[in-house]
Amino acid sequence: MAGTDVFTEIVDGEQVYKYYADGEWKKSASGKSVSIVNPTTRQTQYKVQACTQEEVNKVMEAAKAAQKLWARTPLWKRAEHLHKAAAILKEHKAPVAECLVKEIAKPAKDAVTEVVRSGDLVSYTAEEGVRILGEGKLLVSDSFPGNERSKYCLSSKVPLGVVLAIPPFNYPVNLAVSKIAPALIAGNSLVLKPPTQGAVAALHMVQCFHLAGFPKGLISCVTGKGSEIGDFLTMHPGVNCISFTGGDTGIAISKKAGMIPLQMELGGKDACIVLEDADLDLVASNIVKGGYSYSGQRCTAVKVVLVMESVADAVVEKVKSKMAKLSVGSPEDDCDITPVVSESSANFIEGLVMDAKEKGATFCQEYRREGNLIWPLLLDHVRPDMRIAWEEPFGPVLPVIRISSVEEGIHHCNASNFGLQGCVFTRDINKAMLISDAMETGTVQINSAPARGPDHFPFQGLKDSGIGSQGITNSINMMTKIKSTVINLPSPSYTMG
Amino acid sequence: MAGTDVFTEIVDGEQVYKYYADGEWKKSASGKSVSIVNPTTRQTQYKVQACTQEEVNKVMEAAKAAQKLWARTPLWKRAEHLHKAAAILKEHKAPVAECLVKEIAKPAKDAVTEVVRSGDLVSYTAEEGVRILGEGKLLVSDSFPGNERSKYCLSSKVPLGVVLAIPPFNYPVNLAVSKIAPALIAGNSLVLKPPTQGAVAALHMVQCFHLAGFPKGLISCVTGKGSEIGDFLTMHPGVNCISFTGGDTGIAISKKAGMIPLQMELGGKDACIVLEDADLDLVASNIVKGGYSYSGQRCTAVKVVLVMESVADAVVEKVKSKMAKLSVGSPEDDCDITPVVSESSANFIEGLVMDAKEKGATFCQEYRREGNLIWPLLLDHVRPDMRIAWEEPFGPVLPVIRISSVEEGIHHCNASNFGLQGCVFTRDINKAMLISDAMETGTVQINSAPARGPDHFPFQGLKDSGIGSQGITNSINMMTKIKSTVINLPSPSYTMG
Amino acid sequence: MAGTDVFTEIVDGEQVYKYYADGEWKKSASGKSVSIVNPTTRQTQYKVQACTQEEVNKVMEAAKAAQKLWARTPLWKRAEHLHKAAAILKEHKAPVAECLVKEIAKPAKDAVTEVVRSGDLVSYTAEEGVRILGEGKLLVSDSFPGNERSKYCLSSKVPLGVVLAIPPFNYPVNLAVSKIAPALIAGNSLVLKPPTQGAVAALHMVQCFHLAGFPKGLISCVTGKGSEIGDFLTMHPGVNCISFTGGDTGIAISKKAGMIPLQMELGGKDACIVLEDADLDLVASNIVKGGYSYSGQRCTAVKVVLVMESVADAVVEKVKSKMAKLSVGSPEDDCDITPVVSESSANFIEGLVMDAKEKGATFCQEYRREGNLIWPLLLDHVRPDMRIAWEEPFGPVLPVIRISSVEEGIHHCNASNFGLQGCVFTRDINKAMLISDAMETGTVQINSAPARGPDHFPFQGLKDSGIGSQGITNSINMMTKIKSTVINLPSPSYTMG
Amino acid sequence: MAGTDVFTEIVDGEQVYKYYADGEWKKSASGKSVSIVNPTTRQTQYKVQACTQEEVNKVMEAAKAAQKLWARTPLWKRAEHLHKAAAILKEHKAPVAECLVKEIAKPAKDAVTEVVRSGDLVSYTAEEGVRILGEGKLLVSDSFPGNERSKYCLSSKVPLGVVLAIPPFNYPVNLAVSKIAPALIAGNSLVLKPPTQGAVAALHMVQCFHLAGFPKGLISCVTGKGSEIGDFLTMHPGVNCISFTGGDTGIAISKKAGMIPLQMELGGKDACIVLEDADLDLVASNIVKGGYSYSGQRCTAVKVVLVMESVADAVVEKVKSKMAKLSVGSPEDDCDITPVVSESSANFIEGLVMDAKEKGATFCQEYRREGNLIWPLLLDHVRPDMRIAWEEPFGPVLPVIRISSVEEGIHHCNASNFGLQGCVFTRDINKAMLISDAMETGTVQINSAPARGPDHFPFQGLKDSGIGSQGITNSINMMTKIKSTVINLPSPSYTMG
Repeated sequence: MAGTDVFTEIVDGEQVYKYYADGEWKKSASGKSVSIVNPTTRQTQYKVQACTQEEVNKVMEAAKAAQKLWARTPLWKRAEHLHKAAAILKEHKAPVAECLVKEIAKPAKDAVTEVVRSGDLVSYTAEEGVRILGEGKLLVSDSFPGNERSKYCLSSKVPLGVVLAIPPFNYPVNLAVSKIAPALIAGNSLVLKPPTQGAVAALHMVQCFHLAGFPKGLISCVTGKGSEIGDFLTMHPGVNCISFTGGDTGIAISKKAGMIPLQMELGGKDACIVLEDADLDLVASNIVKGGYSYSGQRCTAVKVVLVMESVADAVVEKVKSKMAKLSVGSPEDDCDITPVVSESSANFIEGLVMDAKEKGATFCQEYRREGNLIWPLLLDHVRPDMRIAWEEPFGPVLPVIRISSVEEGIHHCNASNFGLQGCVFTRDINKAMLISDAMETGTVQINSAPARGPDHFPFQGLKDSGIGSQGITNSINMMTKIKSTVINLPSPSYTMG
Repeated sequence: MAGTDVFTEIVDGEQVYKYYADGEWKKSASGKSVSIVNPTTRQTQYKVQACTQEEVNKVMEAAKAAQKLWARTPLWKRAEHLHKAAAILKEHKAPVAECLVKEIAKPAKDAVTEVVRSGDLVSYTAEEGVRILGEGKLLVSDSFPGNERSKYCLSSKVPLGVVLAIPPFNYPVNLAVSKIAPALIAGNSLVLKPPTQGAVAALHMVQCFHLAGFPKGLISCVTGKGSEIGDFLTMHPGVNCISFTGGDTGIAISKKAGMIPLQMELGGKDACIVLEDADLDLVASNIVKGGYSYSGQRCTAVKVVLVMESVADAVVEKVKSKMAKLSVGSPEDDCDITPVVSESSANFIEGLVMDAKEKGATFCQEYRREGNLIWPLLLDHVRPDMRIAWEEPFGPVLPVIRISSVEEGIHHCNASNFGLQGCVFTRDINKAMLISDAMETGTVQINSAPARGPDHFPFQGLKDSGIGSQGITNSINMMTKIKSTVINLPSPSYTMG
Repeated sequence: MAGTDVFTEIVDGEQVYKYYADGEWKKSASGKSVSIVNPTTRQTQYKVQACTQEEVNKVMEAAKAAQKLWARTPLWKRAEHLHKAAAILKEHKAPVAECLVKEIAKPAKDAVTEVVRSGDLVSYTAEEGVRILGEGKLLVSDSFPGNERSKYCLSSKVPLGVVLAIPPFNYPVNLAVSKIAPALIAGNSLVLKPPTQGAVAALHMVQCFHLAGFPKGLISCVTGKGSEIGDFLTMHPGVNCISFTGGDTGIAISKKAGMIPLQMELGGKDACIVLEDADLDLVASNIVKGGYSYSGQRCTAVKVVLVMESVADAVVEKVKSKMAKLSVGSPEDDCDITPVVSESSANFIEGLVMDAKEKGATFCQEYRREGNLIWPLLLDHVRPDMRIAWEEPFGPVLPVIRISSVEEGIHHCNASNFGLQGCVFTRDINKAMLISDAMETGTVQINSAPARGPDHFPFQGLKDSGIGSQGITNSINMMTKIKSTVINLPSPSYTMG
Repeated sequence: MAGTDVFTEIVDGEQVYKYYADGEWKKSASGKSVSIVNPTTRQTQYKVQACTQEEVNKVMEAAKAAQKLWARTPLWKRAEHLHKAAAILKEHKAPVAECLVKEIAKPAKDAVTEVVRSGDLVSYTAEEGVRILGEGKLLVSDSFPGNERSKYCLSSKVPLGVVLAIPPFNYPVNLAVSKIAPALIAGNSLVLKPPTQGAVAALHMVQCFHLAGFPKGLISCVTGKGSEIGDFLTMHPGVNCISFTGGDTGIAISKKAGMIPLQMELGGKDACIVLEDADLDLVASNIVKGGYSYSGQRCTAVKVVLVMESVADAVVEKVKSKMAKLSVGSPEDDCDITPVVSESSANFIEGLVMDAKEKGATFCQEYRREGNLIWPLLLDHVRPDMRIAWEEPFGPVLPVIRISSVEEGIHHCNASNFGLQGCVFTRDINKAMLISDAMETGTVQINSAPARGPDHFPFQGLKDSGIGSQGITNSINMMTKIKSTVINLPSPSYTMG
């Protein structure tokens, strides 16, 4: 196994990528395909199968059967499989990363980083899961008033069954494995529905798992049109858990899903509160990195800067100066700013920019767009009546709101319907802690831009940003349920030593 | 504060019980009431307010505001309030228990036990919550490959907001406080919608919490018609968590609830598997206690006996013999078997019995019913084609299925759409553990009938029996979410000692 | 039971306090007593029994027997006893506190606080222990490479046996119950050897436990001369754990104790590092409170101030100004500064002061002493060659060392043979964390004086300051050992749900 | 790096094995060596350096310095080093195992197994430690009565410093790495003093760690005479923790060690209680495996059989029959029974056998000995007055005591001064649990012979069998101490979400 020829079998004669079911790469009976447009060239780059509902049904049946056997596989063997998959994925980082460049215009180096970090995540998850699944609780009855110690309760974590994973376009590999690995180590089977942009990277990643020798049917990957198989998947009675990362679709899914555990991460409007005593160079570099990395297409991008008036000019100046050094162009050239994922996305961003313009925001740079490529833009003097004060552009466009008190900043942050992350820059330990406690977001970063990761940290969105905590440990826990066995003794018995 | 006169203020001049909002007992603007029929007399016993949607809205607003302050109350003070409520509840056990006798025909002694056990539960929950809410995690970044130790993550559990509690008729006090206490100690506010049968007992219990001096608006209790305020409550945007115990309604709620944590316990068909080497006297006494206590109206009642053919005659004989000693009559007389909660319930039970009769089940006793009172009945030689093999009578009627292998018993258990509890009787340690592992229910009791409790044990239903684990510890955890603060240092720092 | 007459039985006809053994108050067969000198009057205040080795032997036998039964008492019942003892102790706070005033010259209000806080500690410990002892681990074999899941390991915490508690004079009640309560809730029996100064307060406290109805022999309290029963107790083969707080004696004990768990807290030289950006008023008030409360006779007193030269004058001036307001006199008058515990202690303190004087320290106040009463003193410009830079005065005398860099301060702190606590004053979050990480003490307080407590926090001394972590949770854990039961199945079995 | 030539550098020109210090293999300045006698040939097989006290001092200094840096190494990097060492050790299993065959007469296959299992243990420990060291606690002040939430306590586990590891002869590789790996991953440095028999295997293992590239001085291995460096090592002020496995020496060490954490595992007299309802074939195979593996030279060997009289004849007959199939001879031939480790050991065993003979035990086989080789022997009808009823032969000689009640068996077990493990054979779940609870040993195996492992299970001896729990998780915890940082805020702050 060497080079990229291990991926030959995942594509058919007409260069349409196959879907993965029952341990094999297959063509859909639909005879149809879905096109994936390269954001840079705006040409069709790849095609994937348009799977049918019948094919989804079969995948679900296989997943259910495979799970029953997998749940009876020793934990260390499950981990061994995952370590193998991680190694294969890292070995083949180049071809997988190339897909990310072509499908989602991710800068070349970042694309490689995503794949490598994904391998690390899989290995870490394997070892974490061995511990979480391998340790239950032993409870005794005499803790509770009125009881003698005649009942010993053995409580452990057991798999949920079939987990449906739906990652978003921006990290189609990393946000897929962050669902796949916990599901598998916990003894579940896994059905992956990749995003259309990013589907081919995901299929390559799935092939790495295939090569690691997991049992047939345990992992599946179906592609297709949302209108055909979207609701069909999320409302499928065979699904025992949904782990979704993306946008508003998630809210719709949650309203139809019924009585299964949901892990949702839906978006954010992460605020960056800058106090007067902050290290302004640190602030500026974090705003640029936090706001413009991958052209702002990150859940945890800085999406609004709330800066104390007295230091606002200085901050804006420093940010502008650093922005001037950002390279703009194609992902193949590893530019900092690359085309956003689609024309509709670019149009949406432009809408927010034009709204701000009309309402009087200050443009720190000239607005410039070519196709899907939008030059990085800082909007100063943004006010709450502008859409961009509240909406998520998911592009390289960042609003600055000047505040006259910390409370005003906290209030803006908490008035959002989102609650993913936020950050505060101050040197003062008391202010840092008090402001962090007051901000109603899943995470507050003190003196750094918001970030998912390191991947073992808890990661969760509050309010419309999601439900359930992620991060490796929490994801594994979330993909289990509790089972208890109670040994009832005929007379009380106390353990002596 | 002495005697029952502390309850004077909870009823109005026309003897309609008030609802509780904003720290006060109120009459609904609807001018309407809902009648509660005594199952024994089949006469109207009590009346409660028929609250309006507008009143629900106000309750939600007050709950939201009260929660923000309550979340800033020291943990030990929250606990102190709950201990006080527990003491008041136990002090007034007699009047509260009397409501249970009248509203749901609970035998008099059991009614008192329910109240006392509820007080214990509240106190235990208070202390448990102090510990769960008071201890978070400190994580460092250098666990994950590629990271130095420059990030310290402080992760803690924080309240969800407003918790909606919907308990069922059979334990209207205990299954209310098992939701209220964890919600409150965790820093949430609480809106209670009691079942119609049991509402007055619940209102008495709420008055005990009122007397304990909780802040205004933190606890509310609204009564009314499901058609008017049922969906309105469960789909209310102000609700941040639903804890529901009951029947199929729960599934409907879960399909509309959206992105909020759900704790659902919906019913069961708990199997009792009896092996050839079991202690048959122990089996018989557990079947009688497990099957007929409170006339079978318990989630964790034994609902189907799966007994090895070779010992079936002996088991049936022993059970019959013990059943002959059950007293049948009114709850005031503390009879073992009392009227079931409603005529429609009695009719439903009768339907199952008649279906079994038609299909050839053996009646160990003559079927007898007077009004809502159904005499205890054991049905032998039940087969899988009879409805009672799968459906939950929630009455004093128990089917026996004779099995020829343990596998047959496990298969029947696992073929159910329910998965609450189950039990297995055997002296053999290996069989006990292997069968428990194989049964797909939330809990398996070895050598005892299924049981919720002791209340700190995990308690959860799988499949259509529910979502989320209960028991004191798990309920508190379920009513929190995670918030992280990450301290980012300018250079790596390792804690030395 | 009211007033102080409940303490009548603990003293004999000659006004010698009895010792407590086998559930009774007894006179020693030695016919001898030990005198307790009031530090203020320097007259004999009380007498206690001088127990014999034979009496110690009997106490140990009784303790061993009582422990076996107590370990078979339901956890909630153990807790119930402790709650009762806590309530009785708080009810009788006045007479217990009075002993503290007379025996150790503790200011009257502080004496009451010690007793009340002790009651709270007992109750908190009871509830904590119910949880720690009531929850074990369930481990499965297939976590480890090469194993199937055929072994289920049930691991729980069980009592150690007989715990010997030796508290110091400065908190003879609080530091006794912080050993007694964890020992008892964990299922151990307890032998208390109180300090001579403080013995009578301790005997009063023991009477409160007696009144709570603990089983005979479970708790004992022996008094006497160290030369007679000191080593005899600590090397007694019947002792399964020693929890000691005090001075150098602890090191000697640890060298003879053998293979039993030790919990030792021996002293400290807690440094207070003051940075240039600190809130100097906060610094000054913490130095005064931290350095002079109870005349400096606290393990966690501030014992050396390490202040940056640039702010040293200001800090010294502010501290002096606050010191001028300290009242000096008798504990009955609730003075801030009261006589130190003994003449030898006063002499030792004076020795340190004179050494500093000779070597050129600056006296911020005139040195003044009357009997055991030493007026509060701040020594500026102390240098490392002075004894007081390194030794623990345990009196109202505090050295200030001026430093020219933070590193110098950290180095002084880490060069000490002690490592109890330390504190750092700075507004800067980065410096606060980095310095705390660098200080080699059990605890570092950021922006507050060192402190034991709140009592559920971990509390431990490093290096010569001790071994083992205290605080309620850690003390309970320390007083247990692990016992495992492994269920070996004939074939692998995986828990399904 | 291939074959055994990687071990060339660890031996000097005169074929004396070097010691390992400061990252290098060195000859002792003593110019002396210690001989290792092959138990089979009774000829000198190897020679090792006789290190001096001065060399020990240097090792300690280097260890202290290396530890300070190592404690500042990211956790994942520490783990990476350990994974590498594990891989190298497994790669070189053959030469390491060969030493075990020659030095301690371990059967060839078992010797290989020991090395492989050691590699697995190192890797598992690495991952476990990443988690234990990477997760601390965050505590808040308002859990405790009277406190607001103004103190946040960050508590974490930090290294102890220098760990001294002293493993025994019977598992010189495995019981070395079970101390080395937890010490290192926890951030400690490690000084190894291997047993004389087994020292060369240990030196080979150390070379594998050397090749993995750990920093200089972090790991050291000194060899020599106990009389010269034994007490010098264990009482060395530079040692911060002792982890010892062996015999009575451990008790002596514990009495001199002072205030440092001790992990001691000293021996056992593991009882095997056989009930009337047990599976007698399972019993017999476990007695033979448990009693005679590695010629009984295992801490957790079955060391006394306590069998109910009614099944005793059957059990003895089955055991005898299986014993007849044990091969006796040289370890190179992979015989079941091989020479015991030394002549003095063989003489001791013979002493126990002769004592039993004199006092009337029934010999199930003829007693036979050639040099250090003792043929396997079962002694029936052993009575409590015989030494072998209580003493540990550490050889292939097993006593059977016939009991007339379960209580008699439990009593014999609990009357021992040892308390390592025990086992009970019964099919009955109630008896199994009740007897396990009653046996005062660190572990009770139900229906299997005693066993250390799987290595992540807790493993501890009670009474004279030791102090401290081992097993991977517990060993790591034991090799850490707690450090707290308390952030004191100027006003209460509650974390909102």
